[in-house]
Amino acid sequence: MEKFNASIAYDQRMWDADIRGSKAYVKALEKAKLVTADEMNQILQGLDQISDEWSKGVFVVKPGDEDIHTANERRLKELIDAPAGKLHTGRSRNDQSPFGVLCHLFLNLREIDVLCPGYTHMQRAQPIRWSHWILSHAVALSRDVDQLQEIKKRVNVLPLGSGAIAGTPFDIDRELLRKELGFDDISLNSMDATGQRDFVVEFLFWASLCLTHLSKMAEDLMLYSTKEFSFVTLSDAYSTGSSLMPQKKNADSLELIRSKAGRVFGRCAGFMMTLKGLPSSYNKDLQEDKEAMFDCYDTVHAVLQVTTGVMSTLKINQSVMEAALSPDMLATDLAYYLVRKGVPFREAHGISGKAVFTAESRNIALNQLTVEDLSAVSPQFESDVSSVWDYRSSVEQYTAPGGTAKSSVAAQVEHMRTWLKKLEQ
Amino acid sequence: MEKFNASIAYDQRMWDADIRGSKAYVKALEKAKLVTADEMNQILQGLDQISDEWSKGVFVVKPGDEDIHTANERRLKELIDAPAGKLHTGRSRNDQSPFGVLCHLFLNLREIDVLCPGYTHMQRAQPIRWSHWILSHAVALSRDVDQLQEIKKRVNVLPLGSGAIAGTPFDIDRELLRKELGFDDISLNSMDATGQRDFVVEFLFWASLCLTHLSKMAEDLMLYSTKEFSFVTLSDAYSTGSSLMPQKKNADSLELIRSKAGRVFGRCAGFMMTLKGLPSSYNKDLQEDKEAMFDCYDTVHAVLQVTTGVMSTLKINQSVMEAALSPDMLATDLAYYLVRKGVPFREAHGISGKAVFTAESRNIALNQLTVEDLSAVSPQFESDVSSVWDYRSSVEQYTAPGGTAKSSVAAQVEHMRTWLKKLEQ
Amino acid sequence: MEKFNASIAYDQRMWDADIRGSKAYVKALEKAKLVTADEMNQILQGLDQISDEWSKGVFVVKPGDEDIHTANERRLKELIDAPAGKLHTGRSRNDQSPFGVLCHLFLNLREIDVLCPGYTHMQRAQPIRWSHWILSHAVALSRDVDQLQEIKKRVNVLPLGSGAIAGTPFDIDRELLRKELGFDDISLNSMDATGQRDFVVEFLFWASLCLTHLSKMAEDLMLYSTKEFSFVTLSDAYSTGSSLMPQKKNADSLELIRSKAGRVFGRCAGFMMTLKGLPSSYNKDLQEDKEAMFDCYDTVHAVLQVTTGVMSTLKINQSVMEAALSPDMLATDLAYYLVRKGVPFREAHGISGKAVFTAESRNIALNQLTVEDLSAVSPQFESDVSSVWDYRSSVEQYTAPGGTAKSSVAAQVEHMRTWLKKLEQ
Amino acid sequence: MEKFNASIAYDQRMWDADIRGSKAYVKALEKAKLVTADEMNQILQGLDQISDEWSKGVFVVKPGDEDIHTANERRLKELIDAPAGKLHTGRSRNDQSPFGVLCHLFLNLREIDVLCPGYTHMQRAQPIRWSHWILSHAVALSRDVDQLQEIKKRVNVLPLGSGAIAGTPFDIDRELLRKELGFDDISLNSMDATGQRDFVVEFLFWASLCLTHLSKMAEDLMLYSTKEFSFVTLSDAYSTGSSLMPQKKNADSLELIRSKAGRVFGRCAGFMMTLKGLPSSYNKDLQEDKEAMFDCYDTVHAVLQVTTGVMSTLKINQSVMEAALSPDMLATDLAYYLVRKGVPFREAHGISGKAVFTAESRNIALNQLTVEDLSAVSPQFESDVSSVWDYRSSVEQYTAPGGTAKSSVAAQVEHMRTWLKKLEQ
Repeated sequence: MEKFNASIAYDQRMWDADIRGSKAYVKALEKAKLVTADEMNQILQGLDQISDEWSKGVFVVKPGDEDIHTANERRLKELIDAPAGKLHTGRSRNDQSPFGVLCHLFLNLREIDVLCPGYTHMQRAQPIRWSHWILSHAVALSRDVDQLQEIKKRVNVLPLGSGAIAGTPFDIDRELLRKELGFDDISLNSMDATGQRDFVVEFLFWASLCLTHLSKMAEDLMLYSTKEFSFVTLSDAYSTGSSLMPQKKNADSLELIRSKAGRVFGRCAGFMMTLKGLPSSYNKDLQEDKEAMFDCYDTVHAVLQVTTGVMSTLKINQSVMEAALSPDMLATDLAYYLVRKGVPFREAHGISGKAVFTAESRNIALNQLTVEDLSAVSPQFESDVSSVWDYRSSVEQYTAPGGTAKSSVAAQVEHMRTWLKKLEQ
Repeated sequence: MEKFNASIAYDQRMWDADIRGSKAYVKALEKAKLVTADEMNQILQGLDQISDEWSKGVFVVKPGDEDIHTANERRLKELIDAPAGKLHTGRSRNDQSPFGVLCHLFLNLREIDVLCPGYTHMQRAQPIRWSHWILSHAVALSRDVDQLQEIKKRVNVLPLGSGAIAGTPFDIDRELLRKELGFDDISLNSMDATGQRDFVVEFLFWASLCLTHLSKMAEDLMLYSTKEFSFVTLSDAYSTGSSLMPQKKNADSLELIRSKAGRVFGRCAGFMMTLKGLPSSYNKDLQEDKEAMFDCYDTVHAVLQVTTGVMSTLKINQSVMEAALSPDMLATDLAYYLVRKGVPFREAHGISGKAVFTAESRNIALNQLTVEDLSAVSPQFESDVSSVWDYRSSVEQYTAPGGTAKSSVAAQVEHMRTWLKKLEQ
Repeated sequence: MEKFNASIAYDQRMWDADIRGSKAYVKALEKAKLVTADEMNQILQGLDQISDEWSKGVFVVKPGDEDIHTANERRLKELIDAPAGKLHTGRSRNDQSPFGVLCHLFLNLREIDVLCPGYTHMQRAQPIRWSHWILSHAVALSRDVDQLQEIKKRVNVLPLGSGAIAGTPFDIDRELLRKELGFDDISLNSMDATGQRDFVVEFLFWASLCLTHLSKMAEDLMLYSTKEFSFVTLSDAYSTGSSLMPQKKNADSLELIRSKAGRVFGRCAGFMMTLKGLPSSYNKDLQEDKEAMFDCYDTVHAVLQVTTGVMSTLKINQSVMEAALSPDMLATDLAYYLVRKGVPFREAHGISGKAVFTAESRNIALNQLTVEDLSAVSPQFESDVSSVWDYRSSVEQYTAPGGTAKSSVAAQVEHMRTWLKKLEQ
Repeated sequence: MEKFNASIAYDQRMWDADIRGSKAYVKALEKAKLVTADEMNQILQGLDQISDEWSKGVFVVKPGDEDIHTANERRLKELIDAPAGKLHTGRSRNDQSPFGVLCHLFLNLREIDVLCPGYTHMQRAQPIRWSHWILSHAVALSRDVDQLQEIKKRVNVLPLGSGAIAGTPFDIDRELLRKELGFDDISLNSMDATGQRDFVVEFLFWASLCLTHLSKMAEDLMLYSTKEFSFVTLSDAYSTGSSLMPQKKNADSLELIRSKAGRVFGRCAGFMMTLKGLPSSYNKDLQEDKEAMFDCYDTVHAVLQVTTGVMSTLKINQSVMEAALSPDMLATDLAYYLVRKGVPFREAHGISGKAVFTAESRNIALNQLTVEDLSAVSPQFESDVSSVWDYRSSVEQYTAPGGTAKSSVAAQVEHMRTWLKKLEQ
């Protein structure tokens, strides 16, 4: 109990994060018509009361409260009974559902017309659609889900009937056991079966790669939520203040997401090191598997929940994003303009570079160069060059599959929706 | 050049290992009727000459010698021409073939009747067939191959047509490109495509797990080749002497195999750390991928080759293995004897434990207890208990799938052969 | 040779980075009056010619060129003879000198009066001096140097005379050997001496921590060099263009610095895993030490050189930095104002928070609140509150040791200079 | 509470290990005259009762029981009151004391006359003293202690007075604070002070290296406690049986020690990855430090305690060790014999190798070769060669510092005792 409390000492904000996550989540469910407005309100009030209990230090942890999430769940049920269960729609500990909810979120097309700067090397590169950015992360997550499903197939193998090393001497029908216990296969060799932990290792690594993907998204959002970028605003539910600086609003939920990639990979690295050089069959060293597995499972689960909360409540600042587009980001388009007139790309790139240099040395924007200025750089520039200076036309060029044109983004969304539908069957 | 030589300084034995590996390999090919005796002899002589050149320091590295293996290959071709090519049957840099060769080796059933002690916690546990031990490693490798094939499917995705971030503005038929270049799919989102390195990460991790499996086999063999165990003898081609101690024969090929698991996982850990927290799209940090990838590929390849060489030339000492079987390893069988007479296993385990204790305190072997001694421990012991003291009968109990009985081992081999046939199609 | 070229394939930019680094470095030396203007010019011309040779593909790697750096050094000597040697002043492969040069750079006080926003959680926190930021990194590096020196003391132990395991049977005076070879101590136990690689492991870890420090500095600078921040401008020598986007100037030198922390830690992780569970005394696995050690040494050396180049040529944009200071960053000062009037900090923090909220809801800056507005929030606010709204006064409050006031920053510089002087003796 | 219990599920044996450890420890204390026989007996009975309570599932965890150790401590105090406190002599959570106890153990010279085979590459190399093996591990641990003390000096730096980033604006005498709080120094720069976690990182790495050392010792002991080696016997308190195989006695305490190196390094790797690329000053990611730190601290503490228990109760089998010495291990001595007659070592090594080969091909032991046989190999062999075939004379050759001669081992012990005395002051 004391130890539990000790762990709460540094997990304190987890309770808070859990409740804030639940509040965001129920609102998402209401929007999706999966709970009624009335049910949503009951749940919100219940959660507020629990939050209150925690902050006053009167929340009572009970036997059966496995962890932070189950403690809050149990309490909510005590407070509001039946509707409490609805909070967990699509949130069961089934592995894929939290991904499904997150992917659904990402496929919301309301913001398809918002443009923003696309960055490479953290420097402004080309105009893209905001939805293109969102999809880039959705696609990474879909790979994670696909990989997880393959791992499940490969590891869903019954070891029962392997004994300690030699097998079982009794007339046990392992095939029957397999069917009854819902495994896809039986283990091939008893000695391998008792001494291998590939199923743990593969999961630990999978969790590491998945959280590395989310660390990338979190890093982007932290950048976009600096005062200097101001592209997005996190909801208060996912920010915290500072105990010293009254004006601060820190995106600590994003920092939490980013930090967990390290934690989870550490578990993977630790267990790999433990495995290295062990002799065949069972050795006690293998018992390090469980803590590593459970910690990674819980961490991934919590990170997905926080990510869902952050993304479902994120406010994007369209006007700031679009104001950040600058004519120099169309320098590639200026080169493409020449390519379309038959100039080889290498040469067109050089000419456009000269135009950029001319504008910079005159301290004017690239699109402020007159047709005369440009044709001084290259005679191929004609009056129709003005058509280049339009950000929307720019993104509309990228109609090839995977590009940032509206049609292409819509096709990506469609593809992902089909994938999700198949996943959820 | 100097740098290359510098690297040779500590890779010196690699040349040696490469040639010794090739010599072992060509003998394996001759046995398999894949080269004639005459071709084998030409190859062996050529290799001896190369070895001679290396040891005298007159081997000339030429432009085009990509690495140790290609240098030796090139030289062999110069020396003996056509037959040189045959050395590389089934050894091409195609990913699966070295596994295939290794698995074929493991399925050699000549030794199916050899028994040996099975160990758990490095302590004698139960008698098993030596072929059961071999199969346990073959099965682990087959999982590696299966996983590699799944990774290939998942990563064989065409990124071409993604531009720097926004896509390609030209009317490029990416689907046509895909077909022509032999990819399974096209990348879904241009921003994800340019900024992700999942295909590298998955390979690095796969290599780590695969070499961790081989580190386990190497550890077993090192144990079995100590003077104290003396179960196996490595061929001289895979041992080295000591510069100080004239009598030493060190299993350094096995130590090499064991050590590389760390090296490869280090590459994986390093690249994961490099990826953590990077923002979206391309960042220069990603260029750490290539060295990591190439080093892991080459290391896995070299380790597989050394392992194939070690296993194809390993001599097992049947009489020593069987002499190491001791009656106490049948204590479980003594309990099973009672179970077959209707005693619950928990109770039977206790009774057998008492018998073990009795024998120990009298300083005699377990099978030296008379029926009277045993029936003093439990009345269920009758004269037929003597049937327990037979190691061959013991292993023959384990007929359930995956067990160590002859039929079960034969079925495992059959299963693996079918799998291999499918793999090689 | 081919292999060397293959490695050059992905190291191509290293040549470039090496030459750019040298060009920046010689300029720094000229400023420090360590080379004459004439010598500097000869060196610069020589380097330009080498660069030209590389880019045209006519540079000839010769026997004796150990790596990228020595190849360029050797060529420079061929071209300009004597002055070439001066380029390497303070750049010898002696471990501390590159740190010394870097620290000297950091203690340049020209920019002591420049203010900039200090960030926590990537959000604007409080105004600080730019030199305070620089010092924070110098202090971290000084810890690295101190730790390296301690490691050197601990590992500078003579193993000679340990034999293979039992010691040496001949009458060898190990103490004499120690003195002659310049070691601090002799190894205590021959078995430990031959089987331990702590000196490698400690170095690998030290390199990891050091590069993690530099990854932090690189991350800051990448942020500060985004268009959105625009606090600093990298010299062209440390930026590269894009093959697609003509306007791009990427801070790839910083990305290189950041990425190497992963690489080096990977080596450490790999070697630790290799060591885990090895039995006592020498095992062949230990030979993984050399490559890891050399790679980490070279990487740290290259990163320090690039960092020195980046920092010695960095242009800071004072006006942009100071324009980024915003009145809300003085909210803590507003609370401190009250604290000085006797209000407990917790309460003062709350009052200041209310003022921030009031300003935000009226959509005005915090310092645009009138005295009346403020005294409506708390009666303790009086007309002297206007003194709070001065960024220079704000930083001047922090006079305690370690703070950002001018006197405190100067004291830190003084402290570091004394430390450096001691180090260089 | 439930979570605590859940954790107990897989830590179950930890309770057991803790009690067994305490029982071994109190016996060690009694031997050292630190508790009376009567006190020892009270403590042993108390511990047995606690053990009984755990095994019957009636042990009651109470608020205040921080972890496994404190729960058992608290219960022991309830049962036997005053003497309970004596159990913890030299076992306080003070960092060095558990090392001190362990080192004292290692310096017990009772076994100085026992010889055993020394192994390199896991193959018999040369005869050594058993005490030489023990000292090799004691020396590694003494390096760990030395490094820990240096880390303490370097990290014992007061950060207080750094504020959030800029420092403290109040007239705080940080030097006074430092003295009062017992720090060695004050932090130099407020921004560095709030954003660095070097003190955590250094500890995590230190713990990793320390446990890697212990994994080496555990691996040796596991090897030595196989049936095939039978050099040592673990006390029952540090072995466990098998639920399946009645005869099994597994050295699971050693496996536990070996496995923890991975766990602890995983924490280090995870936190390093979390740190990589973080911007300056405080980021929420840093809060991963505490769990990592506490887990590593507790793990090292537990491993040291188990190791102390294992070593203080280990029974060595002198006759088996000495019977494992074989004449071929004197082949180096045979070469040394020739060296003393003026033959260069390289040549002497070759001659001795021929003698080894001759004996092997006749299937006799090396010392069964007659003087005639030997002089056929080399005329320098004379009748005094028979003096080579004495294991005790062999080890007595190694009198140089660090060697395995009695005088040299005694000097090592003396050196370590002096070091310990200094440490304990």
